[in-house]
Amino acid sequence: MPSARSALPAWQKLAEHHRAQSRLHLRELFARDPRRFGKFSLALDGMLLDYSKQRVTEETMRLLADLARACELEAWRARMLAGERINQTEDRAVLHVALRAGAAVRVEGRDVTRDVAAVLADMRRFARGVRAGRTRGASGRAFTDVVNLGIGGSDLGPRLACDALKHCSRSGPRAHFVSNVDGAAITDTLERLTPATTLVVISSKTFSTQETLANARTARAWLQRKLKDKAARHLCAVTAEPERARAFGVPADRIFRTWDWVGGRYSLCSAVGLPVALAIGMEHFDGLRAGARAMDEHFARAPLEKNLPVVMGLLEVWNVNFLGCGARAVLPYDERLRWLPAYLQQLEMESCGKSVTREGERAGYATAPVTWGSAGTDGQHAYFQWLHQGAAVVPADFIACCQPHHRLRGHHQALLANFFAQTEALASGMNPEEAAAGMRAQRLPEATARALLPHRVFDGNRPTSSILLDALTPRALGALIALYEHKVFVQSVIWNVNAFDQWGVELGKSLAGRILPELVSHAPVAGHDSSTNGLINHYKARRQRRKA
Amino acid sequence: MPSARSALPAWQKLAEHHRAQSRLHLRELFARDPRRFGKFSLALDGMLLDYSKQRVTEETMRLLADLARACELEAWRARMLAGERINQTEDRAVLHVALRAGAAVRVEGRDVTRDVAAVLADMRRFARGVRAGRTRGASGRAFTDVVNLGIGGSDLGPRLACDALKHCSRSGPRAHFVSNVDGAAITDTLERLTPATTLVVISSKTFSTQETLANARTARAWLQRKLKDKAARHLCAVTAEPERARAFGVPADRIFRTWDWVGGRYSLCSAVGLPVALAIGMEHFDGLRAGARAMDEHFARAPLEKNLPVVMGLLEVWNVNFLGCGARAVLPYDERLRWLPAYLQQLEMESCGKSVTREGERAGYATAPVTWGSAGTDGQHAYFQWLHQGAAVVPADFIACCQPHHRLRGHHQALLANFFAQTEALASGMNPEEAAAGMRAQRLPEATARALLPHRVFDGNRPTSSILLDALTPRALGALIALYEHKVFVQSVIWNVNAFDQWGVELGKSLAGRILPELVSHAPVAGHDSSTNGLINHYKARRQRRKA
Repeated sequence: MPSARSALPAWQKLAEHHRAQSRLHLRELFARDPRRFGKFSLALDGMLLDYSKQRVTEETMRLLADLARACELEAWRARMLAGERINQTEDRAVLHVALRAGAAVRVEGRDVTRDVAAVLADMRRFARGVRAGRTRGASGRAFTDVVNLGIGGSDLGPRLACDALKHCSRSGPRAHFVSNVDGAAITDTLERLTPATTLVVISSKTFSTQETLANARTARAWLQRKLKDKAARHLCAVTAEPERARAFGVPADRIFRTWDWVGGRYSLCSAVGLPVALAIGMEHFDGLRAGARAMDEHFARAPLEKNLPVVMGLLEVWNVNFLGCGARAVLPYDERLRWLPAYLQQLEMESCGKSVTREGERAGYATAPVTWGSAGTDGQHAYFQWLHQGAAVVPADFIACCQPHHRLRGHHQALLANFFAQTEALASGMNPEEAAAGMRAQRLPEATARALLPHRVFDGNRPTSSILLDALTPRALGALIALYEHKVFVQSVIWNVNAFDQWGVELGKSLAGRILPELVSHAPVAGHDSSTNGLINHYKARRQRRKA
Repeated sequence: MPSARSALPAWQKLAEHHRAQSRLHLRELFARDPRRFGKFSLALDGMLLDYSKQRVTEETMRLLADLARACELEAWRARMLAGERINQTEDRAVLHVALRAGAAVRVEGRDVTRDVAAVLADMRRFARGVRAGRTRGASGRAFTDVVNLGIGGSDLGPRLACDALKHCSRSGPRAHFVSNVDGAAITDTLERLTPATTLVVISSKTFSTQETLANARTARAWLQRKLKDKAARHLCAVTAEPERARAFGVPADRIFRTWDWVGGRYSLCSAVGLPVALAIGMEHFDGLRAGARAMDEHFARAPLEKNLPVVMGLLEVWNVNFLGCGARAVLPYDERLRWLPAYLQQLEMESCGKSVTREGERAGYATAPVTWGSAGTDGQHAYFQWLHQGAAVVPADFIACCQPHHRLRGHHQALLANFFAQTEALASGMNPEEAAAGMRAQRLPEATARALLPHRVFDGNRPTSSILLDALTPRALGALIALYEHKVFVQSVIWNVNAFDQWGVELGKSLAGRILPELVSHAPVAGHDSSTNGLINHYKARRQRRKA
């Protein structure tokens, strides 16, 4: 098989198919086939995926499934689920599914689900103790606040889940998240808290992440100023390097293990989810894991054409590589899912933001688009102008819940009315005749209406998918996260990139390591390009001005 | 002049120039000219703009300035500043600069700066009264919390400024922001507050924004439950429709005016900034306005080649229309500027997210790219993989402050080391020889190193601009915001689009108005496309399931 998948006949057939039908408008597709919604939507438990507003026909979906088969998607899926070392550049297995598996998963003969179960049991005991007020701080007071120190995959998942599920729990400590090394982040968080009632979770797979360790040292000093040598009782750690956590001063029974076969951006169901267990409750964290497991099982078994993550992954390939879309908006019409765009941004862009195939050849085709967005309806008053009338066509995932978790029914109806209206408007648009009729109804003078007309036309034909959840339960959130995890995997197989490494972050890290001592020193720097020299020297001059 | 500016000879010259020099690498440009940083950086007050890491030469900048002149940028700038009705589709002047002007600005003979001064005086009196505890709530208690109800331009500006400047004030009420119509937003905010000490600001230019009015009704009911008929003393309004605010129950002396010549996304320096005056202090709001004024004056007077907003706007045109970039990242290496990407997303994408020229012709070239990003260093652990090794080249604005506003000096040095390192890494990359040498130094086995090599190479040549502020003062923030406002204006002139209307949001609004009563009713819907029908009926079935 060619390393660059664009050389496959199945890819070429899609390109031809696109040329033949590129002028089709979604309006026409809906007009032609009244059963379009039924044909292009899928349901699983409390989740509905409607992709009938994507620019596809039955032929498109058939050709996309052919491409998936030509790329051996089913074999790759089997290899991942069997614990093979498919992260070949790091020589690691990829087993986030083992974190929530219902049956044994063996890595070189060892059933890793036993290790998982042992850590979960520790988390359960610890979280229950903290939530019940049995496990207390150094001065005998219950923990009222948990501060998670982590960044990237050790931050975004628990941040999303704690925010999304806060209506599930009225008891338990409040969760806070500090990721940025900017001292403003840790300062602003700690100044609102009391050391005696604060538990600090240091979450770093390597226990050497620069940002997280800097924040951990600052938090430890803050605890020590009040609690002296008992500060250690306020620390816990989530890491694959327990020795380093111990050396930092975390008590051995407060260290929760992760493993090298779980990538950071896939790790929410591991001990990285500890803040969820603490703030929302272990039973809800278990619910989240159960939802993810249900999606894993669907992904593993459902035929490609009826497989939600497969269909979503293939639609993105269609949009990116054939329609030429360079971005995809994630638009949760739910305030509680406001961290989802940032979470998916990492999951998708770090996984597939690569231009070299597994075999090390230049792919030559587009891979991950920009994933971005925010909670609706806010975006409607910000960037929806661009989505509707901008020069680029950018697809979007709209996500909402049928049942709200608050009592303001009128608000929820208004929210959902906007949700439905936006996907309808993006698909159908408004042609010149309709725009003119609208202005006649508004009784605009004819000359004004004529001048305004081109500005009031909407091309439409802008593709969206809609995901409706019955309600934002832990189970639904777990399924939603696993849906996107597997969607990304599908894309990585089609694009033939390794979704599980991230070499692209190394150069910046090593250069920062070189620059840091240059900032500490007072001497001007000269060893970089003139821009970097100039910026560093400007900074050094300006930061010193303050002392004068 | 042709309506589509791509037909201009100046545009064609840039296209030729791009073809001739498209293979140039930033490494080579820096190696060739040791004075590159000096040539491609500009300073203004406490702000440094370094654009030497953009893929430009002196010839590029000359040709871009020629394009600006061919598009009559200077004449358009003069027309805007003179109060002409350059928002022609809405027949309005565009005078956000009048909100902070040092001299009279006349609209049809009337000096609007007098109106501005009168509103500012009211804001000053009110904000001082609230902050000093003289202006109190219905039960005689001082206001401890201000809740701003607004969305889009009535939300993002004050949200950004209150967050960015909170270190300027230790006294005064806390500011909260509710924008989303999702009932979770207002519920979560109000449940932490006490009606007797809460002031509610209803911010809506038309006083008819659906989301804001829904939240205002819910907040008013919440106040009334405790304060009965005295609830009105806890309401104020920011609007161009004072009669509607009065009808809603806002006392006349608590209504602060805006005008139709200020667009929402350009309105921070108007009464829309009331939460800033209340939470941070009027003197700091005045500082922000003074900073914006300084940038306005620079924009009005500096020659194009030395004009910061002009240079930034032209660089974006270069990146979008000649290098083909479809997105631009905004990366503030400052936690306090974490709302800046969302703020600029609206400013840029709503202003230039258009594909039709002022004359109503299809432009045919790319306009506003996706603006997205988040506070550094978080992004390094999320999507920087994609920025460094993704298939698309996406430019970025890096923004940082030399002086921190906290005492954690080590954190700030680590933050800035990353800032400098990232722009260096994006520009220079790491070629195969360097990557191989790095792996030899790590003593990797030769076969492993050979297989890894293509994954560890960085192409570099990824353009960035760096903005260094001396410190995050109100003045610096005001200048930064005005910098981007005028940058957007420059782009709109080159692209020949109206930056001040937003017709693209109308269709969704009118469809939502049609759908809302369909959601209230129990009958199934059938009047839309099958997708929209299907989604609405699914929602209606599922929301009812709960009652069973």
